[in-house]
Amino acid sequence: MGLPEFREGDDIGRLIADAAAPGEGEIVVFSQKAVSKAEGRVRRLADVRPGERARELAARLEKDPAVVELVLSEAERIVRAERGVLITETRSGWVCANSGIDTSNLEHGSVTLLPENGDSSARRIRASIAEACGASPAVVIADSFGRAWRLGQVDVAIGCAGLAPLDDWRGRRDAHGGELSATVISVADEAAAAADLSRDKDSGVPGAVIMGLDHLVTPEDGPGARSVQRPEAEDLFR
Amino acid sequence: MGLPEFREGDDIGRLIADAAAPGEGEIVVFSQKAVSKAEGRVRRLADVRPGERARELAARLEKDPAVVELVLSEAERIVRAERGVLITETRSGWVCANSGIDTSNLEHGSVTLLPENGDSSARRIRASIAEACGASPAVVIADSFGRAWRLGQVDVAIGCAGLAPLDDWRGRRDAHGGELSATVISVADEAAAAADLSRDKDSGVPGAVIMGLDHLVTPEDGPGARSVQRPEAEDLFR
Repeated sequence: MGLPEFREGDDIGRLIADAAAPGEGEIVVFSQKAVSKAEGRVRRLADVRPGERARELAARLEKDPAVVELVLSEAERIVRAERGVLITETRSGWVCANSGIDTSNLEHGSVTLLPENGDSSARRIRASIAEACGASPAVVIADSFGRAWRLGQVDVAIGCAGLAPLDDWRGRRDAHGGELSATVISVADEAAAAADLSRDKDSGVPGAVIMGLDHLVTPEDGPGARSVQRPEAEDLFR
Repeated sequence: MGLPEFREGDDIGRLIADAAAPGEGEIVVFSQKAVSKAEGRVRRLADVRPGERARELAARLEKDPAVVELVLSEAERIVRAERGVLITETRSGWVCANSGIDTSNLEHGSVTLLPENGDSSARRIRASIAEACGASPAVVIADSFGRAWRLGQVDVAIGCAGLAPLDDWRGRRDAHGGELSATVISVADEAAAAADLSRDKDSGVPGAVIMGLDHLVTPEDGPGARSVQRPEAEDLFR
């Protein structure tokens, strides 16, 4: 997408509608950073006063105390804090490094926080696209998360609208007539990953449009990406 | 890809070259199941004699003792065994449910094991494609893995050749001149996820060809998907 970097107050939906005119049945994937900027979820580290807990944790993990203060303020709880790594569960339920706070591709000394509610953001952007150009493509908001057991990050969905994030094949029959007992595909996450492949990390490009997946796009906004969060009672790694 | 289901002994590379003629700079993504079948990594549960440990574990987790026996025989160790879930580290280093053993889309009573060495499989298939049609596209072997903290599965790479699976941006400068300190993108996993979106789980389609990512494809086979495995010493969830 040929768009400038977003600033606080930008109407992302309208800007994307003007620039890319996404159509019915398409999936528009935005980077978390673009959405966070438009929503004013940017903080200057110089404005942060780290508390005692943040200072202690920062010293132990060799991190910036101001960053750790923001991480804690965004966190519901700490999942792991060792070997220089700080993994939290955010107030909106994401388990990720540093509460999703991102220091790259920003003016020096600034960081982004995750959108307060990525699903609300996605719904708002979708409505705005529909108002601007009449089409209601699905909207996914993607962020790069690390994984247990595997190196590197992949983009996953932290917000979506117009896409059932989990494509549930359980109970359907496979090609040999056997019942699919465990097949639930996280299509929102796969769409986020696919979109990430199409753009360079330093390009400033705020997103990508995926075509050809019309069967996944729904008229209703649906349950959102938060429905991908594994309930704590079922989680073996928290 | 319009191809029949593979059988033991099939030369996947040649079959794909004939059916899809992948070109230089493309990425051919195969499903684990297709590769496992061609490599004879199929077992009939009726042929398995569950040992005592498998029977005990199966009773506790309410699983098929024959499946559990195979899971254990493929496992280096058990990572979690609770609430009906059996997560292992396989002999080839993947942390996943049931040692990657798959019961769906197979003749009744049969299961597939993961390829013994997915990277070797990918290299062999790549060489076979090159021999058959002269082009050396990258080859990725993908399987659906569950994740900690998130519901559903996404496809990840369990083998690759001709693609650096981790695109390492560390040390490069971002758009604002800041150093990217933690950006390592698992492009092999993202390619696997993107390919999965393009096919139905019950279609019998063995894979997909991704175009437009020529910059990720390398002449050499490279380090393979095993280089994505997080070393145990760095892993906080094992």
